[in-house]
Amino acid sequence: MGRALIIGCGGVASVAIHKCCQNSDAFEEIMIASRTKSKCDALKDKLSGGKTKVRTAQVDADNVAELVALISGFKPDVVLNLALPYQDLTIMDACLATKTHYVDTANYEPLDTAKFEYKWQWAYKERFEKAGITALLGSGFDPGVTGVFSAYAQKHQFDEINYIDILDANAGDHGYPFATNFNPEINIREVTARGSYWENGRWVETAPMEIKRVYNFPEIGPKDMYLLHHEELESLALNIKGIKRIRFFMTFGQSYLTHLKCLEDVGMTSIEPIEFDGRMIVPLQFLKAVLPDPASLGPRTKGKTNIGCIFTGKKDGKDKTYYLYNVCDHEASYREVGSQAISYTTGVPAMIGTMLVMNGTWRKPGVFNIEQFDPDPFMDGLNKWGLPWQESFTPELVD
Amino acid sequence: MGRALIIGCGGVASVAIHKCCQNSDAFEEIMIASRTKSKCDALKDKLSGGKTKVRTAQVDADNVAELVALISGFKPDVVLNLALPYQDLTIMDACLATKTHYVDTANYEPLDTAKFEYKWQWAYKERFEKAGITALLGSGFDPGVTGVFSAYAQKHQFDEINYIDILDANAGDHGYPFATNFNPEINIREVTARGSYWENGRWVETAPMEIKRVYNFPEIGPKDMYLLHHEELESLALNIKGIKRIRFFMTFGQSYLTHLKCLEDVGMTSIEPIEFDGRMIVPLQFLKAVLPDPASLGPRTKGKTNIGCIFTGKKDGKDKTYYLYNVCDHEASYREVGSQAISYTTGVPAMIGTMLVMNGTWRKPGVFNIEQFDPDPFMDGLNKWGLPWQESFTPELVD
Repeated sequence: MGRALIIGCGGVASVAIHKCCQNSDAFEEIMIASRTKSKCDALKDKLSGGKTKVRTAQVDADNVAELVALISGFKPDVVLNLALPYQDLTIMDACLATKTHYVDTANYEPLDTAKFEYKWQWAYKERFEKAGITALLGSGFDPGVTGVFSAYAQKHQFDEINYIDILDANAGDHGYPFATNFNPEINIREVTARGSYWENGRWVETAPMEIKRVYNFPEIGPKDMYLLHHEELESLALNIKGIKRIRFFMTFGQSYLTHLKCLEDVGMTSIEPIEFDGRMIVPLQFLKAVLPDPASLGPRTKGKTNIGCIFTGKKDGKDKTYYLYNVCDHEASYREVGSQAISYTTGVPAMIGTMLVMNGTWRKPGVFNIEQFDPDPFMDGLNKWGLPWQESFTPELVD
Repeated sequence: MGRALIIGCGGVASVAIHKCCQNSDAFEEIMIASRTKSKCDALKDKLSGGKTKVRTAQVDADNVAELVALISGFKPDVVLNLALPYQDLTIMDACLATKTHYVDTANYEPLDTAKFEYKWQWAYKERFEKAGITALLGSGFDPGVTGVFSAYAQKHQFDEINYIDILDANAGDHGYPFATNFNPEINIREVTARGSYWENGRWVETAPMEIKRVYNFPEIGPKDMYLLHHEELESLALNIKGIKRIRFFMTFGQSYLTHLKCLEDVGMTSIEPIEFDGRMIVPLQFLKAVLPDPASLGPRTKGKTNIGCIFTGKKDGKDKTYYLYNVCDHEASYREVGSQAISYTTGVPAMIGTMLVMNGTWRKPGVFNIEQFDPDPFMDGLNKWGLPWQESFTPELVD
């Protein structure tokens, strides 16, 4: 039984909060705080009257003093940070000042700076140790579950893991010829950014979308995947012993890529303002206004995601391949919590990680990535709270 | 030696006027009139001091009284109408009132109403006969040269033409991933409109872009072509004896079609206003502002057009195929008259038709399509004035 302060009120926070309320044995009381209190109140109203007591508050997550006052008043066991990127450090500062445990999840930050993100948070290690509090970094799906999967494979399936391929496949179909789940500028940056992977102790850069693989995924079929940089590569490279190479692949359909390229070609993704009818307008801003609102995609998205890791290594002197994955259904997610699988697969692990820190299962002073904890209770939590995992020893690479 | 009034001052008019001035033996004096006199004056300034006397005037081509006053004052032998679509009838009215010969060229009108255009102009037949003046309709390239080619083939190469395929191929490359030569709305309408062709005395409709052919064109190589409706099909079906089928094909590159489809998919070609930053904006209007200005394409377009007709029929009891075509170079056109081949191939025939009506070679009371005149002097004019024609007996259909 514990109390959690959840900062942020977007799609992922909505899922995490729904899940906390389902899990009222663990979450006796939660407080939802964001810049706009009315959003928190609206979310509170949507939660069916369960046992978890829900409070709401207004807070500016950039302002350490405000955060400290809020935490000191509510006295949570743990703070779950689901706020905006770049607010991690102020929230960690407030946790230090109040000696409160800290959990966060993956942020959608510019990829070219994502490499440096852990460095900044890792710098808090000694201060968290001295304060005797736990910071759990990256308790979403990727990073998050992918790290738990890696720790689980290391603990139960391998003497030594040499290769990890993280495969993030989304076979969701929203029925629009083209739409973006997030800010289209970020989608474009993903596709046009240089990729990188970790091999033999160093980063190897690739051209944008240079490395393509086609996997035939359980339950969703064959999908085109492209190698991208992703932040969990950095911590897994340090924390998985014997590792030689870690790569991250994400699905992009040909139609999605073609639309994005055409929009880029004609200048609609540019952030340079152009003059239109006597006023300066940024083409990307106008494009956003024309495209379907990402929030409108949830109720109409069909199909499933399949996110997992393929591990290759040695067990009892023999080569071994092991594949751990979760399949999540967009429509089922939406029916359950009012959000499609993209938010669901991040929000559920955020609740589980928060629960484990809150109830003391995962508690040690310092700043940790998720694979540094015992994976077993988290793996149980995934099965219990809506993201059951499956395993295979024969993942199918098509091309 | 004669005097011509040219109404309109756009890209085609600019070419026609340049050509009139090159042909000062025929065009003693011309007057350029449009809604904006300053554009006429600017064009006049660009014409190197040749022998043709150039005057300019302001006129509203929708206003018959203004047109009558202008014609009565200048007393031209012929009026060349290069104004906007839908101004044909007011200009014909003014020609009737002043007993002045009339010439026009292809208009870029909505394809779905193009079928009806001749019907309206043909309704002037008796009035032009009674007034003793000539109206020459469609003296551009297509319609225009394609009709002259048909009349020439009928006169010199066949006893009976059964099939005509008109092939309009543009291999110009402006170096942009995507740009439109005209209003993108019209380009989109072309691609999304149902096609039609004339066969066995009736119109056959096709789905948009349903019928595709690949021809290997002399000087430009293999090109994808799609069947569209085009206005000259209507008059050729009446004027070419023994005809069984006439079709019109135009090139659209795969990249062009893909870009257009993607822009349509995301709603950027919509004419329904959306709210943006407190103001209603038509997405297509914003797209136009983002795309390269069509006027900017001329100086940077390389490559050639190849427009022609493949005739199939009988000669001396034997089957025969005959291909007449013109190849026009974008860069050479731009160097000569400051316009690329798209305008050049329309503006040169406009001058030639005007010359033939003005000097009496083509003059008979009534309203006529171009294939109703003796093609030989026009064919000579094409060779003399920059659009030399070529012939082949082995056109190459690839697919």
